[in-house]
Amino acid sequence: MGKALAVSPLAPASFPEPPAIGGVEIATVAAGVKYQGRTDVMLARLAPGTAIAGVFTRSATRSAPVLDCQEKIGGATDEGAAIVVNSGNSNAFTGGRGVESVQAITQAVAKATGVPVARVFTASTGVIGEPLPHDRIVAKLGELSESLAPGQIEDAARAIMTTDTFPKGAGRTLSIDGQKVGIAGIAKGSGMIAPDMATMLVYIFTDAAIAQPALQAMLARLTDKTFNCITVDSDTSTSDTLLCAATGASGVTVDDAPEFETALHDIMLDLAHQVVRDGEGATKFVEVAVSGAATDEDARTHALSIANSPLVKTALAGEDPNWGRIVMAIGKSGAAADRDRLTIRFGDILVAENGWVAPSYSEEAGADYMTNAELVIAVDLGLGTGSATVWTCDLTHGYISINADYRS
Amino acid sequence: MGKALAVSPLAPASFPEPPAIGGVEIATVAAGVKYQGRTDVMLARLAPGTAIAGVFTRSATRSAPVLDCQEKIGGATDEGAAIVVNSGNSNAFTGGRGVESVQAITQAVAKATGVPVARVFTASTGVIGEPLPHDRIVAKLGELSESLAPGQIEDAARAIMTTDTFPKGAGRTLSIDGQKVGIAGIAKGSGMIAPDMATMLVYIFTDAAIAQPALQAMLARLTDKTFNCITVDSDTSTSDTLLCAATGASGVTVDDAPEFETALHDIMLDLAHQVVRDGEGATKFVEVAVSGAATDEDARTHALSIANSPLVKTALAGEDPNWGRIVMAIGKSGAAADRDRLTIRFGDILVAENGWVAPSYSEEAGADYMTNAELVIAVDLGLGTGSATVWTCDLTHGYISINADYRS
Repeated sequence: MGKALAVSPLAPASFPEPPAIGGVEIATVAAGVKYQGRTDVMLARLAPGTAIAGVFTRSATRSAPVLDCQEKIGGATDEGAAIVVNSGNSNAFTGGRGVESVQAITQAVAKATGVPVARVFTASTGVIGEPLPHDRIVAKLGELSESLAPGQIEDAARAIMTTDTFPKGAGRTLSIDGQKVGIAGIAKGSGMIAPDMATMLVYIFTDAAIAQPALQAMLARLTDKTFNCITVDSDTSTSDTLLCAATGASGVTVDDAPEFETALHDIMLDLAHQVVRDGEGATKFVEVAVSGAATDEDARTHALSIANSPLVKTALAGEDPNWGRIVMAIGKSGAAADRDRLTIRFGDILVAENGWVAPSYSEEAGADYMTNAELVIAVDLGLGTGSATVWTCDLTHGYISINADYRS
Repeated sequence: MGKALAVSPLAPASFPEPPAIGGVEIATVAAGVKYQGRTDVMLARLAPGTAIAGVFTRSATRSAPVLDCQEKIGGATDEGAAIVVNSGNSNAFTGGRGVESVQAITQAVAKATGVPVARVFTASTGVIGEPLPHDRIVAKLGELSESLAPGQIEDAARAIMTTDTFPKGAGRTLSIDGQKVGIAGIAKGSGMIAPDMATMLVYIFTDAAIAQPALQAMLARLTDKTFNCITVDSDTSTSDTLLCAATGASGVTVDDAPEFETALHDIMLDLAHQVVRDGEGATKFVEVAVSGAATDEDARTHALSIANSPLVKTALAGEDPNWGRIVMAIGKSGAAADRDRLTIRFGDILVAENGWVAPSYSEEAGADYMTNAELVIAVDLGLGTGSATVWTCDLTHGYISINADYRS
């Protein structure tokens, strides 16, 4: 760190304008946890009655804040809730001191905001294994609490960035039975991204009214189709946290509103794609779509094998239409495949079929396609009806440069 | 390809001097399959009575030569055997033409050497998906057959190289009941290396006398402890082939000689380590030793998770003692782990224990250790008696450079 990274060439043109969400107040501050000259802590206060659902990393070495959040999901909602997030230090693998940091921060947030400790959710992201200087965060909580205000979503997105090169946000206002419901979300993440849950930090706020169990079920369902379908480097964070807070301020109950689930899906997919677009060193945004597999699970195994293959990803970086490496990745995945029934396409270009290169394929057309910044690799296994789509990026010198000296 | 790669800094000082093996004759030639100005085909003729055992890639998209070899293992040995290998083109995913190429080559070898087609084993290594110009190989078989001679093991090692930066060989003469037995082996491989069988080409010759089933069982057993314990990039070749030919010329029967198995193990491990030392772009040779796991299988899962993690491998490239990434890799592996019982060592340096950095650890000592070209990462999970050791290399800019334009 220390040096600023150039903004990803795959970044959206600008931050969107997500709606302010009733029942949500946000503040950010520069506490100097690690970074200098930028905000690094965000605080969100949520109105009484807010339902909070969460999905977390499945890592066996998950951090103290993650364990604390997992215990608190599903608790009473009467007295509201708070979310506090710092960047620069992940408070992961910090032993007993990690737990002490979580306790110190949650108690201080409770004192500053009037929310009970059992409803204060924390997250920390950054270097693993160094003690979190939680005093710096605690010292700023009075100031943070006083500056809480509606909106502020872009500020929040900026405060939680680590190696991210752009802040990530998405939002929408939808109409349900003629009444307005808003959803706004932010995400951070660009390395240590692999789908065993969200592998990043994501916070989504909505003024919809929904029972916590229904929200929890919906969030888990949608995570499997969005954040669990992206991979940058096959590495899984110890700190991944996705929280969705539904304040109910709109007065619109959405437990059985499919349009709400659709809108939430779209926002989660948008944020997931933005994480891939900010993949460390990425120059290509790549969709890997597998169909014709024996099962959906097999399709996912093949898609991830392609998306995580260093040889496929370096070929994409080199704009090399090296479809032989896609055959290799399918072959090694362990899921069912028949070499002679495979069909491979680059976008609309038929590349290979019947166990060999397609007669119509030209290397020039393939090479020309590879110069695009957004690519689609489509594989039909010819075995059944299983399908899956995942998203990834290429593997470049930029990834090596960022990660060979992250701590220096 | 095209441009010559610098020899790996981890290469042995020189090619060893493996013993000439009775019953084995070798020849090499420049057939111009793809490369210019170097040998690219090797032919070995094996005396009547030679037992041949083989281990092959488990890829679902394995090549035509691999499928052909697999069918032939275990056949009658009366009339000897032949092995022919080309570099530059893998004849993989080449449809019906791939099978035609294998037939053309094996028939021509049979004609040139007098060995029946059923005892001619072929292998091809190089680019996937391009038709093999087998006529160039067939045209050279008369010349090759005439120049067959004892020894020549280093020439053979050179002829089968692709992106390898040095030829790989190992050998030993051992004494069994006062009688001499020789073993000599060669290997090629530096990318697309992951342990689901050998992920490379390996040929081992011995003048020991051993029944084919006993040799086959021994080879499978030893592969699990050697070639299946190395990984460069987690990618698995479609062409991996390991053949071991026992001519019996020494007259020494080794079916029940543990010293033979030990010697064969050592040669296989030596060759496996050489493959890692020639890992594409490698600057560090890394042993990952996991102990204290619930089972050996869990230990292997953790060891491979560490060895294949891009974030661990880039940290090693940057000489960054980033042990937090090792914690991350253990956490994501899916095998049993308890964050607070982990012990991590770099060589003899105790880095972390009891869920946090060790009190005695200093970042300076860790950083100093990381400047070594040969590293040991040792993890004790504190859960049981399962253990496993794997070998890998770092992930550098060199890997990206080699693989982003392999075909150009």
